[in-house]
Amino acid sequence: MTLRERCCYTRVMDVSAIGALTFDVFGTVVDWRATIIREGRRLGAEKGIRADWAAFADAWRGGYEPAMRSVRTGERPWAKIDVLHREILDGLLDRFGLSGLTEDERDHLNRVWHRLDPWPEAVEGIGRLRRRFAAAALSNGNMALLTNMARNAGIPWDCILSSELARQYKPDPSVYLTAADLLGLPTDRVMMVAAHVHDLNGAKAVGMRTAFVHRPLEFGSNRSPETPPAGAFDVWATDFLDLAAQLGA
Amino acid sequence: MTLRERCCYTRVMDVSAIGALTFDVFGTVVDWRATIIREGRRLGAEKGIRADWAAFADAWRGGYEPAMRSVRTGERPWAKIDVLHREILDGLLDRFGLSGLTEDERDHLNRVWHRLDPWPEAVEGIGRLRRRFAAAALSNGNMALLTNMARNAGIPWDCILSSELARQYKPDPSVYLTAADLLGLPTDRVMMVAAHVHDLNGAKAVGMRTAFVHRPLEFGSNRSPETPPAGAFDVWATDFLDLAAQLGA
Repeated sequence: MTLRERCCYTRVMDVSAIGALTFDVFGTVVDWRATIIREGRRLGAEKGIRADWAAFADAWRGGYEPAMRSVRTGERPWAKIDVLHREILDGLLDRFGLSGLTEDERDHLNRVWHRLDPWPEAVEGIGRLRRRFAAAALSNGNMALLTNMARNAGIPWDCILSSELARQYKPDPSVYLTAADLLGLPTDRVMMVAAHVHDLNGAKAVGMRTAFVHRPLEFGSNRSPETPPAGAFDVWATDFLDLAAQLGA
Repeated sequence: MTLRERCCYTRVMDVSAIGALTFDVFGTVVDWRATIIREGRRLGAEKGIRADWAAFADAWRGGYEPAMRSVRTGERPWAKIDVLHREILDGLLDRFGLSGLTEDERDHLNRVWHRLDPWPEAVEGIGRLRRRFAAAALSNGNMALLTNMARNAGIPWDCILSSELARQYKPDPSVYLTAADLLGLPTDRVMMVAAHVHDLNGAKAVGMRTAFVHRPLEFGSNRSPETPPAGAFDVWATDFLDLAAQLGA
């Protein structure tokens, strides 16, 4: 099936029953990789550090899933993403020549996740979608991170929800169930929007509607992200504007 | 001390240390009484119900504190404000000639709290304040109520926080402490903004900064709200634009 055929696929459903869209953020709304590479290059130029910033971004993000898994499985108690990001960063400092950074500089670098840039059409797309549906973040990022990011990037959320509110990480069912409860809606009136199959499968498992949004450059141009077959989710969209068009927003 | 003298009072403090403002909502941001009276009159005209809508609004609001107190004291388990509002409403139907309303009509009336109108300068004031500080709701209203209200009234929150996230009601300390934790700030970098002394005292007790905003018409023109003496809180403001001016926003 070609991209063109897939992108036009919307499962027959009653769009008017949808009350809210919940959005994954890292990779779906914002381009973590390009932002980290850009800030890394700037830091490198200031400090005279020569590093492979793309490899640095990938290694940092690579530590993310294992760190969250240790919380999900109960191996360690709840910890915010800011804490997990910092632990992963500390483990990479030597390898990327960053051990000379001061504590303030390390903290500032760690907060690059609060400053991630949106994909080019994301802010406009969310603005269009929220004319028809309540638009909420539902991210593994903590509330402060998401609030700072929205302020910095101008993301017009109706409200910000986070795994932090369930003290568990997606795709644990409690995160999606907590979000639907806080939105005051049954799960089948909430649609999860994400560029990641495991996230959408988690949402689907509790009865949410699901929209896959294709972000082919999330991991750079050399590595393709996982793309689901048509029919796996309710909507398959090329970006947020396409999603808005498919949902009549 | 005259109003003019009080309104110019700002305690000497380091405004630049403030990272976020948290706002009480019912009475501070929105005029619950005027909105309920207006919707009541419209309902009355449609249904041929003659009632004292001001007395109805006051009686409904009058049940609010006792209902929350029963949760705060542990007399009953956690329940959202939507549930408490509905219980109070059900207890008023006979008295105000509303027993003929259908279930859908009762539910719609109960959700008037999701549709409350802001005070005239509130949206502009929050818009100005959030240029300098993160602006978050921190209300006893539940998340869905606050999200619907913000969408309906165009309130530009950076994020919505609620007592619901602590499963306790203000002025229980856990509500303020949960909010500061979610904002990622120590309590002394958060300023609570409210028209109610008990709310500001609750915030002050956990170390937050406090701004009193005078809303003389909250309870109508016949009943004055409690006003604190100058010096009781960090700021005494006549409205949100005055607060913005005093905080340099």
